[in-house]
Amino acid sequence: MDDHVKEECGVFGIWNLGNESVAHTIYQGLLALQHRGQESAGIVVCDTNGPIGNICTHKDMGLVSEVFHKEALDKLRGNIGIGHVRYSTAGGSVVANAQPIVLNYLKGTLALAHNGNITNADELRLELSKEGAIFNGTSDSETIAYRIAKERIGSDSIEQAVYKTAKRIKGGYALLVLSPRKLVAVRDPYGIKPLCLGKCGDSYIVASESCAILAVGGEFIRDIEPGEILTITKEGLCVDHSLQIKERAHCIFEYIYFARLDSKLDGINVYDARIAGGMALARRYPVEADVVTGVPDSGLVAAVGYAKESGIPFSLTFHKNSYVGRTFIKPTQEERANAVQAKLSVLEPVVRGKRIVLIDDSIVRGTTIANLIHMLRGCGAKEVHVRISSPPFLYPCYYGTDVPDNSQLIANNMTVEEICTSIGADSLGYMDISDFPCMTGNLPICKACFDNRYPV
Amino acid sequence: MDDHVKEECGVFGIWNLGNESVAHTIYQGLLALQHRGQESAGIVVCDTNGPIGNICTHKDMGLVSEVFHKEALDKLRGNIGIGHVRYSTAGGSVVANAQPIVLNYLKGTLALAHNGNITNADELRLELSKEGAIFNGTSDSETIAYRIAKERIGSDSIEQAVYKTAKRIKGGYALLVLSPRKLVAVRDPYGIKPLCLGKCGDSYIVASESCAILAVGGEFIRDIEPGEILTITKEGLCVDHSLQIKERAHCIFEYIYFARLDSKLDGINVYDARIAGGMALARRYPVEADVVTGVPDSGLVAAVGYAKESGIPFSLTFHKNSYVGRTFIKPTQEERANAVQAKLSVLEPVVRGKRIVLIDDSIVRGTTIANLIHMLRGCGAKEVHVRISSPPFLYPCYYGTDVPDNSQLIANNMTVEEICTSIGADSLGYMDISDFPCMTGNLPICKACFDNRYPV
Amino acid sequence: MDDHVKEECGVFGIWNLGNESVAHTIYQGLLALQHRGQESAGIVVCDTNGPIGNICTHKDMGLVSEVFHKEALDKLRGNIGIGHVRYSTAGGSVVANAQPIVLNYLKGTLALAHNGNITNADELRLELSKEGAIFNGTSDSETIAYRIAKERIGSDSIEQAVYKTAKRIKGGYALLVLSPRKLVAVRDPYGIKPLCLGKCGDSYIVASESCAILAVGGEFIRDIEPGEILTITKEGLCVDHSLQIKERAHCIFEYIYFARLDSKLDGINVYDARIAGGMALARRYPVEADVVTGVPDSGLVAAVGYAKESGIPFSLTFHKNSYVGRTFIKPTQEERANAVQAKLSVLEPVVRGKRIVLIDDSIVRGTTIANLIHMLRGCGAKEVHVRISSPPFLYPCYYGTDVPDNSQLIANNMTVEEICTSIGADSLGYMDISDFPCMTGNLPICKACFDNRYPV
Amino acid sequence: MDDHVKEECGVFGIWNLGNESVAHTIYQGLLALQHRGQESAGIVVCDTNGPIGNICTHKDMGLVSEVFHKEALDKLRGNIGIGHVRYSTAGGSVVANAQPIVLNYLKGTLALAHNGNITNADELRLELSKEGAIFNGTSDSETIAYRIAKERIGSDSIEQAVYKTAKRIKGGYALLVLSPRKLVAVRDPYGIKPLCLGKCGDSYIVASESCAILAVGGEFIRDIEPGEILTITKEGLCVDHSLQIKERAHCIFEYIYFARLDSKLDGINVYDARIAGGMALARRYPVEADVVTGVPDSGLVAAVGYAKESGIPFSLTFHKNSYVGRTFIKPTQEERANAVQAKLSVLEPVVRGKRIVLIDDSIVRGTTIANLIHMLRGCGAKEVHVRISSPPFLYPCYYGTDVPDNSQLIANNMTVEEICTSIGADSLGYMDISDFPCMTGNLPICKACFDNRYPV
Repeated sequence: MDDHVKEECGVFGIWNLGNESVAHTIYQGLLALQHRGQESAGIVVCDTNGPIGNICTHKDMGLVSEVFHKEALDKLRGNIGIGHVRYSTAGGSVVANAQPIVLNYLKGTLALAHNGNITNADELRLELSKEGAIFNGTSDSETIAYRIAKERIGSDSIEQAVYKTAKRIKGGYALLVLSPRKLVAVRDPYGIKPLCLGKCGDSYIVASESCAILAVGGEFIRDIEPGEILTITKEGLCVDHSLQIKERAHCIFEYIYFARLDSKLDGINVYDARIAGGMALARRYPVEADVVTGVPDSGLVAAVGYAKESGIPFSLTFHKNSYVGRTFIKPTQEERANAVQAKLSVLEPVVRGKRIVLIDDSIVRGTTIANLIHMLRGCGAKEVHVRISSPPFLYPCYYGTDVPDNSQLIANNMTVEEICTSIGADSLGYMDISDFPCMTGNLPICKACFDNRYPV
Repeated sequence: MDDHVKEECGVFGIWNLGNESVAHTIYQGLLALQHRGQESAGIVVCDTNGPIGNICTHKDMGLVSEVFHKEALDKLRGNIGIGHVRYSTAGGSVVANAQPIVLNYLKGTLALAHNGNITNADELRLELSKEGAIFNGTSDSETIAYRIAKERIGSDSIEQAVYKTAKRIKGGYALLVLSPRKLVAVRDPYGIKPLCLGKCGDSYIVASESCAILAVGGEFIRDIEPGEILTITKEGLCVDHSLQIKERAHCIFEYIYFARLDSKLDGINVYDARIAGGMALARRYPVEADVVTGVPDSGLVAAVGYAKESGIPFSLTFHKNSYVGRTFIKPTQEERANAVQAKLSVLEPVVRGKRIVLIDDSIVRGTTIANLIHMLRGCGAKEVHVRISSPPFLYPCYYGTDVPDNSQLIANNMTVEEICTSIGADSLGYMDISDFPCMTGNLPICKACFDNRYPV
Repeated sequence: MDDHVKEECGVFGIWNLGNESVAHTIYQGLLALQHRGQESAGIVVCDTNGPIGNICTHKDMGLVSEVFHKEALDKLRGNIGIGHVRYSTAGGSVVANAQPIVLNYLKGTLALAHNGNITNADELRLELSKEGAIFNGTSDSETIAYRIAKERIGSDSIEQAVYKTAKRIKGGYALLVLSPRKLVAVRDPYGIKPLCLGKCGDSYIVASESCAILAVGGEFIRDIEPGEILTITKEGLCVDHSLQIKERAHCIFEYIYFARLDSKLDGINVYDARIAGGMALARRYPVEADVVTGVPDSGLVAAVGYAKESGIPFSLTFHKNSYVGRTFIKPTQEERANAVQAKLSVLEPVVRGKRIVLIDDSIVRGTTIANLIHMLRGCGAKEVHVRISSPPFLYPCYYGTDVPDNSQLIANNMTVEEICTSIGADSLGYMDISDFPCMTGNLPICKACFDNRYPV
Repeated sequence: MDDHVKEECGVFGIWNLGNESVAHTIYQGLLALQHRGQESAGIVVCDTNGPIGNICTHKDMGLVSEVFHKEALDKLRGNIGIGHVRYSTAGGSVVANAQPIVLNYLKGTLALAHNGNITNADELRLELSKEGAIFNGTSDSETIAYRIAKERIGSDSIEQAVYKTAKRIKGGYALLVLSPRKLVAVRDPYGIKPLCLGKCGDSYIVASESCAILAVGGEFIRDIEPGEILTITKEGLCVDHSLQIKERAHCIFEYIYFARLDSKLDGINVYDARIAGGMALARRYPVEADVVTGVPDSGLVAAVGYAKESGIPFSLTFHKNSYVGRTFIKPTQEERANAVQAKLSVLEPVVRGKRIVLIDDSIVRGTTIANLIHMLRGCGAKEVHVRISSPPFLYPCYYGTDVPDNSQLIANNMTVEEICTSIGADSLGYMDISDFPCMTGNLPICKACFDNRYPV
């Protein structure tokens, strides 16, 4: 039913200098990052005053609220820790792939939480295999963790091992590494994946998005810079810039869809970017209409922007039934209702006799939007003009976004006109790549999924 | 965390003339009525071609999606049926009180689904007890069911028994009665509780709200009239108006908060009523401001109305985390976050430096709105003006709405000025009773909870 | 897999004069009675010092250990209470039929736990129905409960209502009735169903079998006499013999199979009766053999008796896998193993080259014993002589035992010789009715299922 | 409540040449080995006709019947596979330690199931760590699996890697290694742990005990020899004896308690050994008595042997309540019953006025036997003479048996006379080490836990 590309993961780390237990705070932080991954969740904590290697882990398949019960959280005692939410791609959705990963090796114990994808994972894995590495799973995250452990043996510190590993891996990533006394955070040199720093009372926090820092009652300090290795210890923060390069390429899809509306990434409010996107769309594809609306919740803010720029009033047009969740039993073929209808219903007074502009952030397969247009017409909409606040999605992402096969991508198989007909719209307009600066100013962005120019 | 009065129940009934199984359709209908009751759910079906008394029941504590799994639905075979969702008040939330109620007696089997509250339940119960009635629980619904069964013995038909019972009971109610070959629906003479009729293929449907008819792919026919007894049999519909009286008193809170946004009750779209309410509020309590917004989701539509009338732009101002559900572990006292913050977060770009009008439908205890105002100020709001799209809630409801004790109702213990100070708002304005016609035209309404004038 | 007739229920009641909570003790007692019913379990308690009507109930489908968790038990506060385990027959295995039954009526609340079956239930039910009674289920237990409640209205006391009810009901039964201040126990005038009295510290106990009294650390006082109505109050015990008649007819199957090995019923140890039964069988059907053994666990004690009388040594011959429970996944058709083999395996050293006497308590369908004989021969048994410690089961039981349809009873469809051939035995001998006095002396017994002479 | 030393694991492997799915058969086999480990269970299967590395795993904490549901079994498709049941010792009972272990490495995938304990695990682990190995857990089984994977890289075959690994590891073990096309079984050179070979239709089976082969409908072929490496491939069996040594030391406790009654290990029936043990005990510690009995189920067979030798009749004396399982709620301190009493009850007719010989296989803490003696006296036993079919347990086992701390071993802290007084027996006799040949003939045995002479 959900017709979107998927972000793969979210990470959250915390170091409490006051020796307070951090598991409940990680839990709240992961709840705020749940939109980045709904298949598994995990927390690893460590007491920096306890014996080395005294690490506690709890992870399982499911939502944060399903994986953690109060009893489980209370057992996770420690003043530093990392957490992870995951949406799994190929390799399957199995408990063995739940993160954080925990390893035992010559130098002790380390844990890793990883958001992103490594493009040279196979090469690194083979290299490690040839040197005798033995793996439990097949994920690139495990490969990174093994590499760090391996490098740690010939290094002076865990941060040096992280540095040496980061020099070798290519792709987009945000990594959190927990060793018994240190929390190391590193962001890929291009800054493809987001990662930021905050403070909450006696604690330092690193998280995929600023919304997680605010959700635990903390304050945002700054983004971790692309290529920055940040080490948090008892003594405080220690920054290493030696990985940094000149080029940057922040993922544009974080602003279009992935990141939460209340997050600020690399200096730009997600909300502002989406409003601006809607405004650009209104300038590029204006239309005479009575109402602007968005697909809940992915298209709502761009719709507000479109309305603002076009002068056509914005309105909520669909009611979303929040009780229709993952476990609801879909209507059968014989029934007159369908799954989209169970989740969303049209506010008829808003649409009857009206010309509607309907905004969404993207079209992947096109099934959901076709259903919604059908429902709008069924409630008396005179015209339905679709505007999409991103360009047609044409190329695969190698940095950690889950995209269906080319054959399932409607934009790969049809022209814009054909798509328009296929979904039953009166007109269809996609955002143009040249409009991105309206959203993100002169921030260097990765837009390879639209133009095939891969930064790495 | 949720600071609202609660509707107590929703009902859904269906008669399929084509002998198709109706359990899946009732399930979809109950999902659409879930907002009317989240504590228990149940379905009873019967095969009108099978032997008399061949009734199947499944009911339990929990949400519709928790109570019913595919296997359980598939076992409920029958072409007529009724369903119920319940929010329990005093008497406790126990499985014995889950509806529909099923009884076996001299004339066979009957099942009952009830939304509402009977004001003379104790008197009727005692009367029945004196005549030898023996009950399994203590609810007024069981009392009604027993009364119907008792009357059935001296009556020619189940609909006559329902009529005789309805003559005796006082209060607000919508009842569905399933006997092996008939489905009887009755609405209280004042029309306090809603009930409507629809059609879906070969099926007739009766439901608390029109949204449930649409959600199953059906079409709305009309409201059941106050005091109407509608009997559905193999031959079709049969209407009895002999209960009807002149007075009517439709519950105003259905329009303010209870009913779903996409429902139409007694000729008035809930959406339109809420827009109109927001507009009336803007006329009565105008204010200089930069943004109008609503508490998600209860205040959003009235906020759109306020914006429309005042010319101040509407904006979404909060992000709602849909992953924070009933089972989430609340932040502890020591943590800097709170439960409201886990569920809602401020879109800072919208509020920084701005004068905000914040709309909600009501204030019961005042704790949630105080938290939200505090969060808005923390994100830089210059002023926060609160507008409430209902008058202060002062009197108990005897017709099936769950209201906290007087001592917990903020409006019973403070003046408007004191409430304004207590919640930290810059100004506070409640809708006036005289504004209700803006919302519901000349529909006769029950507004006893605001003015102490009880229709029954 | 289990080829036995089934007892339908067990009851346990307790009155603690020291005001201690009794729920944990009832739980232990029900565990000891679990062999009498495995489909549902329930406990009702009441605090005799609390307000009238203050009754707490917990009941559900499942074993005692599945239905009750520590938290649930701790919530059941009260110093008097009754418990029930149930094996359901016709009417289906549904939660609505779980006992104890709790009723609310003019005189307050009462709860009932019932073991047995009423032969005139339909007549009583119709009578009640005609007087206006409305039922929630269809069981004879509910009929009894309603009758007691009805009689209570015109009676001076609950025990008088129980007496009046007992005068009207026919069949075999043991009833426990809990009213807010009293516990009433009654046994049918023929004494078909067992019921006994014990003491444990400050508590009086009534239970279906003495083993339950001992299991909670109490001591057996005496059997409740057939037709005795025993009322336990704060003041102590009060006995009413007015129901008593001359005839008695204790169910012989309690001694043969139903009752637990360590119980003593109406003066006779179950263990002794089974030993004596085995001895009688040895006298009636002697055979030259090397080893006597029994089907675990139903035939073991009679086998010890046969061994004792015949002089042939007894041996354990099967190992029982206690990990193969109700939820185990049976071998599929294609597999070489079968369900009996997963549960029981042959001790080959005991049987190789030996002539075996194999004892069981009864043959219902004959499938299990056929499997066991096949397994014994597969392990080298030279001969297998089957002896059954009851006569062929030929007639239905109307007093609360679950017997398959006649068509499934092997003894109804074959001669003893044919059965012998069909199960693959070398010889087969059933106990003769005339041997019962060996087991139960001159205790008057009900043996209608063997000889068609029904006492009631 | 259970006062025994624990065996740590059971293993089951199968190769079906007819390409049938083996998961259901492994499930049945693990059910038959459940007595060897109740904390976790797992199955790994592979389709030898599918692509290399196509391995499916399901494992979790719990009993076999809890871990596997039909759906899960049906998903495990493959014609070769291994399964494991585990009782965990130090390191805790966590899902990460559930077996079989699955590894991915340069040569593909391998899975390992291990029963036993390696005495030089720390040394091997450190050696691997120094060479760069990174572990997920801390168990010796993981160390072995890594070692095999490591050796595989420089070897011609998986069986050669197993050989090289086996040359390095010390201790008692039975290992099953699954590579995509081969199943390798190896037993430690001393034969401390049991392992045997069977056939079932088109399948070869290896299992810890012969009972598992019979339980799946197969036939026992022979024991795997100590030090034998058996490789099963499409072509059949391939045997390698190069690990073999002259000394052997079969664990005597398998015969005394661990192995299932119907198993035959290294040519000796467990049943025969226990009968012989009881007979030896009768010769060494005769006593005048009326009845011989055993603690269910651990002492029953030795009791039959004692009875046979002494001429004193054997009798069952306790009833075991099979409904009292792992989840039952123990009686509280205040209650008059205790946990032993809930599980076992005395058959009073057997013991009243009698002199009892009570046999068990061992005494660890002494609490359970003390309770039983107390219960026997409470039921009128005149004398209770305890006989134990093993010597006092004095020394730790390094080969995979879980023994409590010395401080908890009653035999380490008291003389036999003191133990006798402490448990309340009239006399107490332990089997003598010199009696072992009665049980196991001239089979070389490991009896280090009694005499401190460790074979390895």
